[in-house]
Amino acid sequence: MDPTEKLVQFKGGHPGTAMGAALIGVALWRHTMRFNPKNPEWFNRDRFVLSAGHACLWQYIHLHLAGYEVWGMDALKGYHNPDFEIAAGHPEIEFPGVEVTTGLLGQGVANAHLGAVYNRPEVAVVDNRVYCLVSDGCLQEGVGQEALSLAAHLKLDNLTVIYDDNSVTVDGSIDHCFTDDTSAKMKANGFHVLEVMDGDNDLHGIISALDTAKTIKDKPTFIHIRTTIGYSSRKANAGSAHGAMLGVTEVTYVKQQFGFDVDKRFVVPQEIYDYFASLTELGAEYESTWNELFHTTYARLNSRVYAKEAPTFDASLLPPKNELPKAPQATRKSSHIVVSTFAPWYKTLMLASADLMESTFVHWQKNFGLTFSQPSTSLGTCAGRQIRYGIREFAMISVANGLNAYQNGMIIPVCSSYFQFWLYAASGLRMSGLQGLRFIGIGTHDSIGVGEDGPTHQSIALGTFFRALPNCNLLRPADVEEVLGCWLLALSPSSSHTPTIMCLTRQAVPHLDGTDRSKVEKGAYVVWESHEGTVPEITLIGTGSEVALCLRVGELLAPRRVRVVSMPSQDHFIRQMKAYRDDLLGVGEALVVAVEAWGSYAWARWAHASVSMHTFGLSAPQETLYEILGFGPQTVADKIGDLVSRRTGRDGVIELPEMGEFEELLVGYAKMHAGPHNI
Amino acid sequence: MDPTEKLVQFKGGHPGTAMGAALIGVALWRHTMRFNPKNPEWFNRDRFVLSAGHACLWQYIHLHLAGYEVWGMDALKGYHNPDFEIAAGHPEIEFPGVEVTTGLLGQGVANAHLGAVYNRPEVAVVDNRVYCLVSDGCLQEGVGQEALSLAAHLKLDNLTVIYDDNSVTVDGSIDHCFTDDTSAKMKANGFHVLEVMDGDNDLHGIISALDTAKTIKDKPTFIHIRTTIGYSSRKANAGSAHGAMLGVTEVTYVKQQFGFDVDKRFVVPQEIYDYFASLTELGAEYESTWNELFHTTYARLNSRVYAKEAPTFDASLLPPKNELPKAPQATRKSSHIVVSTFAPWYKTLMLASADLMESTFVHWQKNFGLTFSQPSTSLGTCAGRQIRYGIREFAMISVANGLNAYQNGMIIPVCSSYFQFWLYAASGLRMSGLQGLRFIGIGTHDSIGVGEDGPTHQSIALGTFFRALPNCNLLRPADVEEVLGCWLLALSPSSSHTPTIMCLTRQAVPHLDGTDRSKVEKGAYVVWESHEGTVPEITLIGTGSEVALCLRVGELLAPRRVRVVSMPSQDHFIRQMKAYRDDLLGVGEALVVAVEAWGSYAWARWAHASVSMHTFGLSAPQETLYEILGFGPQTVADKIGDLVSRRTGRDGVIELPEMGEFEELLVGYAKMHAGPHNI
Repeated sequence: MDPTEKLVQFKGGHPGTAMGAALIGVALWRHTMRFNPKNPEWFNRDRFVLSAGHACLWQYIHLHLAGYEVWGMDALKGYHNPDFEIAAGHPEIEFPGVEVTTGLLGQGVANAHLGAVYNRPEVAVVDNRVYCLVSDGCLQEGVGQEALSLAAHLKLDNLTVIYDDNSVTVDGSIDHCFTDDTSAKMKANGFHVLEVMDGDNDLHGIISALDTAKTIKDKPTFIHIRTTIGYSSRKANAGSAHGAMLGVTEVTYVKQQFGFDVDKRFVVPQEIYDYFASLTELGAEYESTWNELFHTTYARLNSRVYAKEAPTFDASLLPPKNELPKAPQATRKSSHIVVSTFAPWYKTLMLASADLMESTFVHWQKNFGLTFSQPSTSLGTCAGRQIRYGIREFAMISVANGLNAYQNGMIIPVCSSYFQFWLYAASGLRMSGLQGLRFIGIGTHDSIGVGEDGPTHQSIALGTFFRALPNCNLLRPADVEEVLGCWLLALSPSSSHTPTIMCLTRQAVPHLDGTDRSKVEKGAYVVWESHEGTVPEITLIGTGSEVALCLRVGELLAPRRVRVVSMPSQDHFIRQMKAYRDDLLGVGEALVVAVEAWGSYAWARWAHASVSMHTFGLSAPQETLYEILGFGPQTVADKIGDLVSRRTGRDGVIELPEMGEFEELLVGYAKMHAGPHNI
Repeated sequence: MDPTEKLVQFKGGHPGTAMGAALIGVALWRHTMRFNPKNPEWFNRDRFVLSAGHACLWQYIHLHLAGYEVWGMDALKGYHNPDFEIAAGHPEIEFPGVEVTTGLLGQGVANAHLGAVYNRPEVAVVDNRVYCLVSDGCLQEGVGQEALSLAAHLKLDNLTVIYDDNSVTVDGSIDHCFTDDTSAKMKANGFHVLEVMDGDNDLHGIISALDTAKTIKDKPTFIHIRTTIGYSSRKANAGSAHGAMLGVTEVTYVKQQFGFDVDKRFVVPQEIYDYFASLTELGAEYESTWNELFHTTYARLNSRVYAKEAPTFDASLLPPKNELPKAPQATRKSSHIVVSTFAPWYKTLMLASADLMESTFVHWQKNFGLTFSQPSTSLGTCAGRQIRYGIREFAMISVANGLNAYQNGMIIPVCSSYFQFWLYAASGLRMSGLQGLRFIGIGTHDSIGVGEDGPTHQSIALGTFFRALPNCNLLRPADVEEVLGCWLLALSPSSSHTPTIMCLTRQAVPHLDGTDRSKVEKGAYVVWESHEGTVPEITLIGTGSEVALCLRVGELLAPRRVRVVSMPSQDHFIRQMKAYRDDLLGVGEALVVAVEAWGSYAWARWAHASVSMHTFGLSAPQETLYEILGFGPQTVADKIGDLVSRRTGRDGVIELPEMGEFEELLVGYAKMHAGPHNI
């Protein structure tokens, strides 16, 4: 290697903001935030969220200077290098001092709500603050705008948002694409706005603004700081400083500017370490003072709130199957049985909706008179554990991720909207899975059962995405009994690092004899057989509202030996032993047909054929829409019967299709847009 | 039926806004907009976009009053009823007078950019205006905020946004969730803001504001109008007026208030029709005057611009295979060959990026000196056909949908970002497919090949969603030759009503001998065989960058008879005849293994096994990341070799797995979060 090459050994990274925001880092870690570098998990620490995730090198360096043990010089050397385990190209949650992973722009600012939502000023024992650094990108992304509007609405005065305004994006000057008057806009949102004109040199000004923010009541603070990207290099103010290495010449130049020895690498002058040295002692003091306060004055508070982990939910609190409602009922409504049962007992369940609280049934039935936090009009009713996110789905899940990350998953966010709207928020759910955060998303109106609101609101492909996403459980219960099973699964310790999306019906579905909450965790199980104890000739797999349909179809397909399987969770089914899976489906023996009012895509994994939607939906009354679109029991039975007879030999045995011969028994509406599968 | 039941025969709908915004409708259709009700397709008509899609009844009624022929009383009677074909619960694009489908909140305001972007004031022949009605929901949704910020940035002075501020959402008073100072915020965005305090009664005030908007230069106008949801009923100002029927009592009450005969239904007093009657004559006059202007004064303009359809692209303009670059090259870079070839010739190709213009290579190489529109500094460089959307992916695609819908698909929007960012915009792409709009999305950095930026930027499951979405083509070319084939497919007449997402690499990939642009439209084809002309024992399916990997693996698996198939499009492959598909894969004969650096989900449709990612990715240098994550050729060959030997009998024949026995030959990194498939 050319010796000068060592100066740029990683040949990449995002140096511009790390240099431009240097003084902000000093002001934050050295002069403002309260934390204990020797115990990064201390409960009442201030939280820092780097929304501009590409600038993580800046954060890593300050964690190093602040004295976090794992952030030694070796860790910094590992920037971009998987051998060193930490210091990834975007921050990842499991590294001490990194509260959340905020790789894709915009989501970080929503994450920053964190405890800012959870903490109520009435409870002085939790008086930490949340700081968030945002970039131009965060302010352009819709999710950032949603989150900022919401933060101001909720009057989160423990939140300080710092805008690193360097006027440069990847494509060059910000003027090409962004001309908001950001300070005025944040005032219009309801922020207290402060400005620092020279963020490259005015350390005192930044510290002073951060101090002022602590004194502002009933409003979050937005500190608008002008900085220079790539400050001190000759790439200052250039887009090229954003996401590419500075290069040998510039690294040399910068080192010379500051009087450093160009040939020495990874050296921090002792005087810099000395400048940060007091933080260790200070941190220990913060923590011991707080511990004393907590244990003496506030011991009366519910200890569960400060537990290091999520609560364990007591399944016996829920009614047994024979006490459940007998009449057909929408599963969204059945879900409320769980919500209203567990809500009084588990104080870290945080319920929420994006303006569909009553339609999704994710709300308290009454005010439970909680002891931990008090009702606050700014949060609506329900004692601070019912968050009204407004019509801001993406911000909702991003905030929820922040809440779950707040302290080892002890807060369990439950958020709700119509199922199709979860596509607006899908990037947030992906981040839940990627970070191993528990999140419970309730998606009601989960299919063409929506009815009149039509195809824009009717999901066809969204379930496929959540099923395909690593570390994400999509659950689709068949009836009230399975709804209880799905909730228990989502709340179980086995889901403590996995998000759940629960798909619930708008329309009423019958209470089925064969359903069993305890079997939901298997992913799939038998709910009915025409000839009990025999190997089936036809296995019907139903999910959600289509399980009841399969039961009617199953009767129509007799006298063949038919088995109906409910599959509330593909994700859990795949985890079962092969023998269980093969026996259940009758692999190698039975013709397996999946019936689901979504698209057919991916059903070839578990079935030889599927009865599915191949187009977008239709606006029509819900009561008749299943019939109109071909999901009437007789229509489905006829389609399957036709397939069976085409594949039946003279001996009466059904010949099973090979891989590649999967059949889409398409249903749909002739007048609709035909998708590519309609050939 | 109880006779009074007839008063509420549809038992649903969204009456509140239809009543509350009535005067706005009168002001728009009767007094402001220019259109020809007898020719809804007239080129220079003003466009109206209903962002608050649930209020479509309001739009349908005004189209009826304005004299649109298909919007007769029978059509109105069909609200929510599929038998009548139009008048769906949310507006759908194919109905005359409805410019775009805007069912899910927020996207409509982005759609409204429509020609507001395309039209340049320098060309006076296109001087129509765009009107958009937005609700609280649109202003809370991030996509709405993105679009409004962008519209003001672009100085779209032919755009008027009307805010129907009724202070009520589904969950009740807006104060629970939304306390923005909207007028101040819109000023901060750069809008000219007007306010009308009494939108229930002040028709003159609304008309006057709409007139003023026409005179404002260099800024779009935002008219903030206070209205009363459910106006004139006793459910006024109640959330219950939003999305449920008014009920017999209220319908009776309202009819009585206005002196109508309660028992007569579907009757509009003649004086109302008279009031709107002049519009037909006026519309004809608008059109004939414009036709004259166009044909005499502006005949010099490129006639293609006013064609009724998209251009037909000349494939022979592209270089033949033997003239393509020989050295390995990133497919994102190869894509620029097409962009720079077609750009000068086809003036309705609109290129765009969300702040990654140079990294996605979706930009003009030079200013082509276009004759239609002139360079404008407010649009950046490149003559108004290069849109810089800023870091606003969702608004980007929603605006693009508006552009394609503007006039029968003549404008073809090409938008670019990193592939994973398309999840931010996925709801918009779903609307492209649902509406049958052509949209070309370029997604670069399409896999773990991203490298250092790490798992947040590395796609695993997103491709599955686009493949599952009806009427959406996901294309993943293997090399420069296939890149050309994919572009030709996306630009072909067969794709004129289908969106395309093209997945391109960050990293260089070799130019392969076996690729063929003309075969891309088959979806999949043979690129290499170890024993030409024989039935394979093993078929490897590769996509994108993994096709080159399959070729190396194929050589390692010899002396078995191995075939390598490139599958750039599952969507097109499924349309082929069964015989072609079966022959290509060797169905019933060959063990088929898919190799793709995404998740395994859904590959069971075409393969017995897959080599896939089962976790999120990792931050590491791109050059080594495939090796680290187990995608080295030898590792892959070993995994497949192990599967083969496990399934080979004494006779040397490979026994093929049954459905349900699909194997995930998982690769990944032990330190990573294990997804549910890692069992």
